[in-house]
Amino acid sequence: MSKPFIHDDFMLQSQAARELYHNFAKDEPIFDFHNHLPPDEIAADRKFENLFDIWLAGDHYKWRGMRSNGIDENRITGSASPRDKFDAWAETVPHCLRNALYHWTHLELSRYFGFEKLFSPATADEVWETGNAKLAEPDYSCRGLLRTSKVKALCTTDDPTHSLEHHVAIAADPTIDTRVYPTFRPDPALWVHEAEGFNAYADKLSEVSGIDCSTLSGFRDALRSRHDFFHEVGGRLSDHGLHHIFDAECTDEKATAIFDQVRTGQSADDSDAEAFGAYMMLFFGQLNAERNWTMQLHIGAERNNNERLFQSLGRDVGCDSMADVDHAGAVRRYLSTLDLRGHLPKIMLYNLNPKDNYALSAMLGNFQQAKPGDPPCRLQLGTAWWFLDTKEGMEWQINTFSNTSLLSHFNGMLTDSRSFLSFTRHEYFRRILCNVIGEDIEKGEIPREMEMVGEMVRRICFRNSVDYFGLEMGK
Amino acid sequence: MSKPFIHDDFMLQSQAARELYHNFAKDEPIFDFHNHLPPDEIAADRKFENLFDIWLAGDHYKWRGMRSNGIDENRITGSASPRDKFDAWAETVPHCLRNALYHWTHLELSRYFGFEKLFSPATADEVWETGNAKLAEPDYSCRGLLRTSKVKALCTTDDPTHSLEHHVAIAADPTIDTRVYPTFRPDPALWVHEAEGFNAYADKLSEVSGIDCSTLSGFRDALRSRHDFFHEVGGRLSDHGLHHIFDAECTDEKATAIFDQVRTGQSADDSDAEAFGAYMMLFFGQLNAERNWTMQLHIGAERNNNERLFQSLGRDVGCDSMADVDHAGAVRRYLSTLDLRGHLPKIMLYNLNPKDNYALSAMLGNFQQAKPGDPPCRLQLGTAWWFLDTKEGMEWQINTFSNTSLLSHFNGMLTDSRSFLSFTRHEYFRRILCNVIGEDIEKGEIPREMEMVGEMVRRICFRNSVDYFGLEMGK
Amino acid sequence: MSKPFIHDDFMLQSQAARELYHNFAKDEPIFDFHNHLPPDEIAADRKFENLFDIWLAGDHYKWRGMRSNGIDENRITGSASPRDKFDAWAETVPHCLRNALYHWTHLELSRYFGFEKLFSPATADEVWETGNAKLAEPDYSCRGLLRTSKVKALCTTDDPTHSLEHHVAIAADPTIDTRVYPTFRPDPALWVHEAEGFNAYADKLSEVSGIDCSTLSGFRDALRSRHDFFHEVGGRLSDHGLHHIFDAECTDEKATAIFDQVRTGQSADDSDAEAFGAYMMLFFGQLNAERNWTMQLHIGAERNNNERLFQSLGRDVGCDSMADVDHAGAVRRYLSTLDLRGHLPKIMLYNLNPKDNYALSAMLGNFQQAKPGDPPCRLQLGTAWWFLDTKEGMEWQINTFSNTSLLSHFNGMLTDSRSFLSFTRHEYFRRILCNVIGEDIEKGEIPREMEMVGEMVRRICFRNSVDYFGLEMGK
Repeated sequence: MSKPFIHDDFMLQSQAARELYHNFAKDEPIFDFHNHLPPDEIAADRKFENLFDIWLAGDHYKWRGMRSNGIDENRITGSASPRDKFDAWAETVPHCLRNALYHWTHLELSRYFGFEKLFSPATADEVWETGNAKLAEPDYSCRGLLRTSKVKALCTTDDPTHSLEHHVAIAADPTIDTRVYPTFRPDPALWVHEAEGFNAYADKLSEVSGIDCSTLSGFRDALRSRHDFFHEVGGRLSDHGLHHIFDAECTDEKATAIFDQVRTGQSADDSDAEAFGAYMMLFFGQLNAERNWTMQLHIGAERNNNERLFQSLGRDVGCDSMADVDHAGAVRRYLSTLDLRGHLPKIMLYNLNPKDNYALSAMLGNFQQAKPGDPPCRLQLGTAWWFLDTKEGMEWQINTFSNTSLLSHFNGMLTDSRSFLSFTRHEYFRRILCNVIGEDIEKGEIPREMEMVGEMVRRICFRNSVDYFGLEMGK
Repeated sequence: MSKPFIHDDFMLQSQAARELYHNFAKDEPIFDFHNHLPPDEIAADRKFENLFDIWLAGDHYKWRGMRSNGIDENRITGSASPRDKFDAWAETVPHCLRNALYHWTHLELSRYFGFEKLFSPATADEVWETGNAKLAEPDYSCRGLLRTSKVKALCTTDDPTHSLEHHVAIAADPTIDTRVYPTFRPDPALWVHEAEGFNAYADKLSEVSGIDCSTLSGFRDALRSRHDFFHEVGGRLSDHGLHHIFDAECTDEKATAIFDQVRTGQSADDSDAEAFGAYMMLFFGQLNAERNWTMQLHIGAERNNNERLFQSLGRDVGCDSMADVDHAGAVRRYLSTLDLRGHLPKIMLYNLNPKDNYALSAMLGNFQQAKPGDPPCRLQLGTAWWFLDTKEGMEWQINTFSNTSLLSHFNGMLTDSRSFLSFTRHEYFRRILCNVIGEDIEKGEIPREMEMVGEMVRRICFRNSVDYFGLEMGK
Repeated sequence: MSKPFIHDDFMLQSQAARELYHNFAKDEPIFDFHNHLPPDEIAADRKFENLFDIWLAGDHYKWRGMRSNGIDENRITGSASPRDKFDAWAETVPHCLRNALYHWTHLELSRYFGFEKLFSPATADEVWETGNAKLAEPDYSCRGLLRTSKVKALCTTDDPTHSLEHHVAIAADPTIDTRVYPTFRPDPALWVHEAEGFNAYADKLSEVSGIDCSTLSGFRDALRSRHDFFHEVGGRLSDHGLHHIFDAECTDEKATAIFDQVRTGQSADDSDAEAFGAYMMLFFGQLNAERNWTMQLHIGAERNNNERLFQSLGRDVGCDSMADVDHAGAVRRYLSTLDLRGHLPKIMLYNLNPKDNYALSAMLGNFQQAKPGDPPCRLQLGTAWWFLDTKEGMEWQINTFSNTSLLSHFNGMLTDSRSFLSFTRHEYFRRILCNVIGEDIEKGEIPREMEMVGEMVRRICFRNSVDYFGLEMGK
């Protein structure tokens, strides 16, 4: 019997890589400190009808792949049946050779469904039937998948106006082993270029917080009170999705004037929106610093590029890509201003355009501070994100981190995913990490001290992030 | 006897690579869908006097290499004898180790002239004599070289004002097996920043088309009629050489005003030239979409950088290089506008600065459309171009395509060359492609299913582009 | 006994690489044509108290690494004892796996101190004691280290106002074998955005040169006279540290107006500073061209990013990183203007942000000129600099040079260092160079002609730069 595609030593090209993976990486649990999993489904312990629901329904990576394969939109996001859409995906996968989708697909089918052949129209029936049957088993509910994936904790992504009721419910439930923390993601609080949406948001914030948001000062207080509330519920991270780091001077007076204008219904122009964004991002930095939170910055996405599909399908449908922006100056000014004010929190910066990896990671290295008690690599380049969440992208990120910072202190992998089947990406990352480091050992570029090097690998897989974020893990 | 430098397994580092190349890639014919070959020389079946004429006379890559080697301009483009210039090249080649020129040179000498030693001053006499003798044989005429190179079809690059008489003559000639198609390249129709040249061009266009070009509407009609004519003669591609994608709003009224001003002899300023360019590029997109043509965009060259050599030698003399431009926003707006108007044609985008590969390919992926009948990867990143037409550049392009699109649907190689000896670059590309994919097989990153993977390789070498462009091949 | 980490074949992964290194590279002497060594210490033949003095006191690379490792600033640049700071470094090194600091550290300990174990807190005592003992030996003075490192010549970096007394003293001393040349680095002559500093500088220049600097013409004459003086003392290089290449038109009249304003005490605004910088850089280009000097351009650093540490510690403390700048247009205009005026000197351009490697090297290739007597690759991309002075960075630079120029003519390595222990970086570079080229030989991408290829390697290690700069070597 020939070896299956996903076998024990998948991606591990050397003896040292295999030792590192099997002896140090494989058995570490998972702390998925940034994702987009739905806390309500975890609270309700949702079960899934079929492979379409769990695997395709919300996955814009796959949609995008199918569009590239010439699949009609109807079979992607349209009215075609779940099975028809599943078949469209089966038609697409054989064309995904050399794309991460090919590895992800086979890892997920292998690890969760025990399917070891190649996925294609020829095997689609088998996968659909055996997969759907498995989904009826208890281990395939949301919580079952978290448990079998050894996820000790995870951080969802949440709006400040959210009640966090599901997080509270989960925390109160002794039957769930995984700790589920909220992440404070206040992006709409910056969007003064659209007065209507901003005002609706401010009103909702006012309602949720019980604090009048008719003034900037009230708006800030309301956000701070929500930040406090997230802290109480266990949150220790914020997250910010930004095309670029806002880069403008903005006094309290100016911010107040902009806020007041927008509250009267008049949208801010580009220059004022930039200024207000810069002002608020300094405020969020301060909130995070005061509470010793970590601030996550996801920068460099150019979103909703296809206006036609945006109008028909909305956001997050697989029509985003990379901006090109000269980041260095803006990042410098943002970090230095926070630092001068004593408001520089721990920062993880995720970058989308690979050309910027080096400049961004090197810029973070200027602000490591090193006050007693600070963690090492207090500012760091987060793992390869989105289009870079591939073997090539991960290797670039690992090399950038290694050369411009100290890899030993890297917080490692997170899925950033909406799917309960994505935890195999931790396995994928660990195999790639071990392969990169193992190759260095074989080449003599790292000493063949397996305990020392293995301990570093082990920490990157789990422990570094636990220590860095200061969050408690589940059982 | 030791193995020659260019041997059967040149560039093929693994068993899988060798299988892919020899069993699937090697014997595929060539469709060179973009080059700068002179149709008149094909029509006349030109023969070449000597190696200088066929190998050095028009090759600015070699000129540039010779300048870097400290060769005096007189022996490059000046009045030195053909043999002296040939000797200057022979002096340069041993210094080209690790440059693509070294591989190209030896591939061309091996494949066309059976010369298997290393080229240098020590072997220059032998090459000159045996090469010149071969050039007198029938297989070394333009058509002979196309035939022995198995070129089933090629697309030249032609001005809309050209009569295409040679294309017509070639099509009518039953003795030529290679199909020779024109490509519509209307760059001068954008150049309103130089009124004199623009007006001469508009006048010529008027004369050729028989349509009055004194108004913008007439100018557009004339271009459309030439597009129709190219279509009749078999053309299905346009080509556009752009520093960057023009990015400005421009109404019909504004374009008319700019056109009218320039027609009075007053050059457009930078802002108006940008607007007019944007306007015309939307028009060309529409023409292409209406006819189901493919639009080729070559972006990112900074041309004629050496003002002194430009004044003495003119364009295309080896003094071009890469621009750095932030492309993402402009490309987004261009494609989205075409898409919203229903005018988005098939697009192949060729990028010159490697830092932009990822962002550009990812941006194309937002617009795949996938209407029934559309080819897969309807928009795609073209093969590595010019300074990137190297092993490193090709590997980057292949990896970018793989990670941000579906490599399976890649249209593969084209020479972009002015020389009848450049078809060996298809061989070079195929060896590199097979080597990259073969390495993945050896590493277990692609399944060792040689028929499946080999079929993908075969399609990239030839069939994908035939299907994509919808052009008939010769015998 | 197991092989030490730094062994004979360190970094050499193939037989060909080992042959190239041991037979051609290893024994070449060193010409370190750009560094920041203190000439006064060479003149005085300074000896070092302890490892802190020679190894940590001035090394902002290590400071930066220690900050990333969470070391308190007091143990980096503060009042902690030398031994405590040394221990902080020992704590940091085990966390530097995959960072160049790890290789540099062990190379330096091995080559200069015979220490072959891994450096860590466990071995810190041994290193401190044996190292300090060695430093008392005669071979460990500045001159001793130059001699044992086989440094035939070096170029320091010097302000035009400097008396060069140490260079003169060294040249007059028959007991020193290493030739020590000054480099003309006139950066402060551009800094009109800070009138006070600029005026102090102009006054000092006036005093040193004996030429009145109250007018721009006098200022230029004074600089020219210092350039002459540097020439007399043996200097043949200038050096310029620039965020970007100044890019503005500036007539004599405009420059005069700016100069006059600044001399009255009013700082130039950004636009005027840009114009004045452009004006002066053309002037320096002319000075260099007239004397057949080489102009070194170090571009792309974003400096002093951490305002707080800048205020407390000043410049060059490990808080610099990479700018992102679109360089191509500005470099084009600068080189083309110099070329048109007949003022284009030999140029070595060092680039800091790796995304710009290709565009910059390709741009240099447009201006090779090739007048009889010009050296080949008269303009070239200098070796990987600062954050890129790593295995990855060097490989990128070597590949860029190979693909966009002729590697055969590369001037090779320089340390750019402030430390007398950094000459091992030549060894590190040579090993990486031989490894890259050796791999090409093993793959058949370069012919296995060891004498031909080895001769190229040998020249890159030493002879190319001797010929290019035209400087005499010591014994």
